Amino acid sequence: MTFAAPIAEQLFVLKHITGIDALAQHGRFADATADVVQAIVEGIGEFAANEFAPLNRIGDVVGARLIDGKVVMPDGFVAAYQSYVANGWGSINAPSDFGGQGLPFSMATVALDSLGAANMAFALCPILSVGAIEAINHHGSESQKAAYLPKLSTAEWSGTMNLTEPQAGSDVGALRATATPLGDGRYQIRGQKIYISFGDHDMVENIVHLVLARTPDAPAGTKGISLFLVPKYQLTADGGIGKANDIKVVSIEHKMGINASPTCVLAFGEEGECVGELIGPEFGGMRAMFTMMNNARLNVGLQGVQIAEAATQKAIWFARERVQSAKAGGASRDSVAIIEHPDVRRMLLRMKAGTQAIRALLYFASGYVDRAALGEDGAREMVDLLTPLAKTYGTDLGSEIASLGIQVHGGMGFVEETGAAQYYRDIRIAAIYEGTNGIQAADLVGRKLAMEGGDVIRRHLQTIAADAGGNAPLTALAGACAEVTEWMLGASVDDRLAGSYAYTQMMAIATSGWLMLRQLRAAQAEQAANGTNAFLDGKVVACRYYLEVMVAEALSLKTGAMAGSELLYMLDAEGMAA
Amino acid sequence: MTFAAPIAEQLFVLKHITGIDALAQHGRFADATADVVQAIVEGIGEFAANEFAPLNRIGDVVGARLIDGKVVMPDGFVAAYQSYVANGWGSINAPSDFGGQGLPFSMATVALDSLGAANMAFALCPILSVGAIEAINHHGSESQKAAYLPKLSTAEWSGTMNLTEPQAGSDVGALRATATPLGDGRYQIRGQKIYISFGDHDMVENIVHLVLARTPDAPAGTKGISLFLVPKYQLTADGGIGKANDIKVVSIEHKMGINASPTCVLAFGEEGECVGELIGPEFGGMRAMFTMMNNARLNVGLQGVQIAEAATQKAIWFARERVQSAKAGGASRDSVAIIEHPDVRRMLLRMKAGTQAIRALLYFASGYVDRAALGEDGAREMVDLLTPLAKTYGTDLGSEIASLGIQVHGGMGFVEETGAAQYYRDIRIAAIYEGTNGIQAADLVGRKLAMEGGDVIRRHLQTIAADAGGNAPLTALAGACAEVTEWMLGASVDDRLAGSYAYTQMMAIATSGWLMLRQLRAAQAEQAANGTNAFLDGKVVACRYYLEVMVAEALSLKTGAMAGSELLYMLDAEGMAA
Repeated sequence: MTFAAPIAEQLFVLKHITGIDALAQHGRFADATADVVQAIVEGIGEFAANEFAPLNRIGDVVGARLIDGKVVMPDGFVAAYQSYVANGWGSINAPSDFGGQGLPFSMATVALDSLGAANMAFALCPILSVGAIEAINHHGSESQKAAYLPKLSTAEWSGTMNLTEPQAGSDVGALRATATPLGDGRYQIRGQKIYISFGDHDMVENIVHLVLARTPDAPAGTKGISLFLVPKYQLTADGGIGKANDIKVVSIEHKMGINASPTCVLAFGEEGECVGELIGPEFGGMRAMFTMMNNARLNVGLQGVQIAEAATQKAIWFARERVQSAKAGGASRDSVAIIEHPDVRRMLLRMKAGTQAIRALLYFASGYVDRAALGEDGAREMVDLLTPLAKTYGTDLGSEIASLGIQVHGGMGFVEETGAAQYYRDIRIAAIYEGTNGIQAADLVGRKLAMEGGDVIRRHLQTIAADAGGNAPLTALAGACAEVTEWMLGASVDDRLAGSYAYTQMMAIATSGWLMLRQLRAAQAEQAANGTNAFLDGKVVACRYYLEVMVAEALSLKTGAMAGSELLYMLDAEGMAA
Repeated sequence: MTFAAPIAEQLFVLKHITGIDALAQHGRFADATADVVQAIVEGIGEFAANEFAPLNRIGDVVGARLIDGKVVMPDGFVAAYQSYVANGWGSINAPSDFGGQGLPFSMATVALDSLGAANMAFALCPILSVGAIEAINHHGSESQKAAYLPKLSTAEWSGTMNLTEPQAGSDVGALRATATPLGDGRYQIRGQKIYISFGDHDMVENIVHLVLARTPDAPAGTKGISLFLVPKYQLTADGGIGKANDIKVVSIEHKMGINASPTCVLAFGEEGECVGELIGPEFGGMRAMFTMMNNARLNVGLQGVQIAEAATQKAIWFARERVQSAKAGGASRDSVAIIEHPDVRRMLLRMKAGTQAIRALLYFASGYVDRAALGEDGAREMVDLLTPLAKTYGTDLGSEIASLGIQVHGGMGFVEETGAAQYYRDIRIAAIYEGTNGIQAADLVGRKLAMEGGDVIRRHLQTIAADAGGNAPLTALAGACAEVTEWMLGASVDDRLAGSYAYTQMMAIATSGWLMLRQLRAAQAEQAANGTNAFLDGKVVACRYYLEVMVAEALSLKTGAMAGSELLYMLDAEGMAA
């Protein structure tokens, strides 16, 4: 069985959920014509299946290795990456002023959907580059943009985000890396960073590290952080590759998954020769970091979709081939493919429906990224609201679907060569990095809930409720979300945080349920207009299953969302261990 | 941080849930005095922590290896196993007629709880031996018992279960291994078996394989299966180790977890020299297999408890040490240990409460195994009912808790050296082997629901409802279970199976919730009588959290349980892939 990108599904969601046609009405995105969209979706699907998917297993088994201080990718990765660059797949959404195609972020999303389903660890590399491009494009000087964006836009160079230090994980403000002015506008960078994805590798000629550090006498905490651009190789006067910067790859982590993604410990300036330049104003690091991370959070949510898609395809394929036992209660005693057994069917339909639900949520959020870029009213607030929902639910449901994929395979699912286990291992990081899902939930009940005094969330829920029409589970869930929202607005910080995770789940499922209902209606309308086909039949069943079972299931999360924090603090830390 | 067995908790559950005192009133279990029970619980806890726990990581990293056709265990395993035998830990529940201690199965359960929390893969070996002992003791001849049980009872020899073949997994009836009479009462065994846990290893001097095979002209399907005893080394006339049998270790699987447990492909009789003997009557294989597997299913459910305990201890320890960010909304801006953050607290309390809930469920079921052995009225039916609940929920919640354990660790959770990831990988097999959880759910809505026309389940739910008293979530969940039960009794086979998984979850959570309520009351009574302590305080909070949040959450599973199968079959197999 080989992976095939879900092209009909992707085009359907782009049309009905992203609203790609409306985006193309704007001059900025006028290139995103129906023909171009279809060509990209089909082209990237074919590329992902042919070039990235065959490397998924070697990426896991061999993995990225640190050899003589340099990270070496497994066989085939360098060539595939070069092909990715040559085909222009890295430049879809990159700024057109600097060699990018300037297409909607929504189109980069669909490209990443296919690439990551084929090979999640490999497709992580472009996610980091996009973050670097965004930060430089929004906060860099004209000369910095001119020097770095052209090669980043084509993906000939890659980028990294250097935030974490051993004592500074979720608590970014605790970081200690330093940047000392050299007097010529440049800075000497010193410090150790950990968990740097693709912190080094041999697929590009230069790597653009974006590094958070403190200038001398900077205030403590997040207020004193600045962002620096620190290239692996300094640039020559004419912009070419110059002297190697003083950046040492100390080690790479031995992880549970995404082994093809080198997770580096980087030492900057051990020899006192690491040179970087400030991006944006001094002490503007946090703002620049959020620029880097915001779309990255959506792209990590999208990793859930990627794995869910790949795991579902593999499980359905297996369940159609694997023959085991007669159907219970059936007339025939002949053994059947296990897809005919009700509980296997249930698992597969849950996988299929869940995958479509999180894809809709991510594509919907991506559409708002484009609308925000166009300056559309309220679009930025929607991105802000949707980001924690999409990141958390996308990654959680992605993990659940990967687990179901193992279960469908039975004993073979636990044996590595089958590949189902790799999906389960790979996706587990996604609930952690780019802000743990707990941090996302805190963001929802903090900054996001507070937007316009709660009105952004209220309006969103009213839209869902109004659209839900006669759909009982969705109406009930939207109502429960509204009730919890009002409770949250009146609750203490501790009580809000105690229920934040359950509330995030409810909000995400209500939003996804709404998008599935819209797809159900769109599919039925297409059936009525043009007759049905296998894709539309599948869409109708998946949407119905999601609404009738998965949305209904979420209703009782309300209890946990409103449980408060009293019970959580009844024991002290010592008592928790007793 | 080192693992410590939860001795106070184990003694509390043995007392209030297993009812160990009442068991000791029976002559057969008179040796299980309070002193003996306490000595065993403390002794095995110490042994597990000192001897098994230090080998958990090497077991994962080095794993069992196949070298020159023999399985070699990692360094330290042979000595630890010999110490296990020498200390008598393997013989707790083994038949006293053959050198075992004849103590309650409940005591073997608590021993395995500690051993497996220290090292799940290692502790799998004894589980297999217990299955072999049970099968031989119940179905073997006197001479077979005399020949094999003494060494199995002391754990000097180990046992295996050989059911699965490539085409015969859940569908045992499809197996093809053959047994041809040799004319002297013995049989020549031929065939390949897969997924044989501890199918070979170097910790014992002999391995007793129990092999399902077909005699010549046996009827097709499960009716034609017989059970054979096939030792690794044939016995000499005086019962010593004789000639090696013709059993080849073809390979061992490369798995996602439990790497210290060699999962073997075994070829029996490739040279035509594999000799075995029939256990029980010809064609009695299925019955003997269920004897082997029944307690094994509970012991696999217990693996969920093991990992949950170990993962919870590790996460609490980490969360107390790891300092990150000030408490949101707090007066101080000083960073605190992450255990002080509400959402981390929520994760830890969920882990703690969930671990206690599945431990209660497993210990409760074990108590009924002992009551059934004593011939107590209705006890066998309770074991039958509780087995699919305990196996499914124990393993599912064990996986969820291991996942939370990773999440508490943040990025470090994904790095292998932390150890949180190993728990997550190890436990994932438990939902699959000894009958997948889907098979368990089918068993519940099939054979178990049908017991006494549904009255066994009805009575159980009535007991819960009567005991629930004023507890609203438990009353509601027991009521929902009763409603689904009646619906199931009138539903088609397909509709029942479509909802079987959700129903199994509800039933397990209702039962666990009831056991947590009983513990809550017992803890409060102890507090009232003797004053409180850290353990009792923790017990009260864990029980309350389970009831107030986790039982309440389960209510909406009802929709999925009663959803029926229509939607599942609206697409054909081809359509599922579209």
